[in-house]
Amino acid sequence: MKTVTALIFDNFETLDLFGVVEVFGRLPDEYQCEFVSLQGGLISSSQNVKIQTIAMQDYQLSTNILLIVGGKGTRKLVNDNQFLATLKALSEQAEFILSVCTGSALLAKTGLLDNKSATSNKLAWQWVIAQSNKVNWIGHARWVVDGKVYTSAGVSAGMDMAYGFIADQHGIEIARQKAQEIEYYWNEDKDSDDFFQE
Amino acid sequence: MKTVTALIFDNFETLDLFGVVEVFGRLPDEYQCEFVSLQGGLISSSQNVKIQTIAMQDYQLSTNILLIVGGKGTRKLVNDNQFLATLKALSEQAEFILSVCTGSALLAKTGLLDNKSATSNKLAWQWVIAQSNKVNWIGHARWVVDGKVYTSAGVSAGMDMAYGFIADQHGIEIARQKAQEIEYYWNEDKDSDDFFQE
Repeated sequence: MKTVTALIFDNFETLDLFGVVEVFGRLPDEYQCEFVSLQGGLISSSQNVKIQTIAMQDYQLSTNILLIVGGKGTRKLVNDNQFLATLKALSEQAEFILSVCTGSALLAKTGLLDNKSATSNKLAWQWVIAQSNKVNWIGHARWVVDGKVYTSAGVSAGMDMAYGFIADQHGIEIARQKAQEIEYYWNEDKDSDDFFQE
Repeated sequence: MKTVTALIFDNFETLDLFGVVEVFGRLPDEYQCEFVSLQGGLISSSQNVKIQTIAMQDYQLSTNILLIVGGKGTRKLVNDNQFLATLKALSEQAEFILSVCTGSALLAKTGLLDNKSATSNKLAWQWVIAQSNKVNWIGHARWVVDGKVYTSAGVSAGMDMAYGFIADQHGIEIARQKAQEIEYYWNEDKDSDDFFQE
């Protein structure tokens, strides 16, 4: 059983998180999702969803898959050294790191994306790429894989990336079957993206 | 400002709820989402997401849009008279009722779908249609609109239905623009469905 740890924060984007959680949660013999935050307790999304989290101080600094999502809350967090140090520590020991949307801006600020390829939200593109000039930012991508780091485009692209991860780990037929179960039209091609505008 | 009230329960399906919430939450000047349950407090999805809810006894029996989602929890609730009475009362006074996935099985049990057309989850199809023979169940549909009732197919179909609702209320260009904002490939045709098997 592998643990998927979502490090979340106030004003995260609802679907960034729960789209990916739905994908992993549909393989309950393989993956278990956990939700942590710096302070613990209830954390609110930008869409008024309040979810229960474990405080970092009560959490083992160990996970298989670190999930970092985006949303309005990232605008402040790119300058929050305590948050970035926690994200960096969790990420460094994780087997895999997955980011959705502007979550990659946070990863970029930790230095973990230095000299790596990555993508992000397309509406917030200029703000994201301004966070680090050491990242090879890829505009035309639904998601990007570089070593242990998966980064996706905006919001709903996170689900496509999560199925891409499942395909890489368990084969594409399992990924397709799992997408079918939730009646999801999976966009299988990570290099195809219609939302980027130069 | 219109209120979208999700009546939820333990073992709801994560994306059933949060896909639709993401859609409405992206029109914050028009819609506000609220989460209620019979007992109040933390309610857990089948994928281990614990969200804060208001207890029905503390909630005004009044909403513009009633949202009822599906998931494993519906299997018990089709025989829970207290839950069904609450669902019926909330639904009767709502301007619109939206269901996702097996949420329509719950609506069917209240009698609210009698002599109406509706759809539901395709994997659980036989179980759903066995809940009521007074409903005109439509297999080949992504979502169905009948009067004030919108019902969608399984899980991710809820988002397509929600954009369909936005299109009906605000015009299709607004719906397309909102889907674009979250980089979502909206399946616009409610009558097209690839997941139903006779």
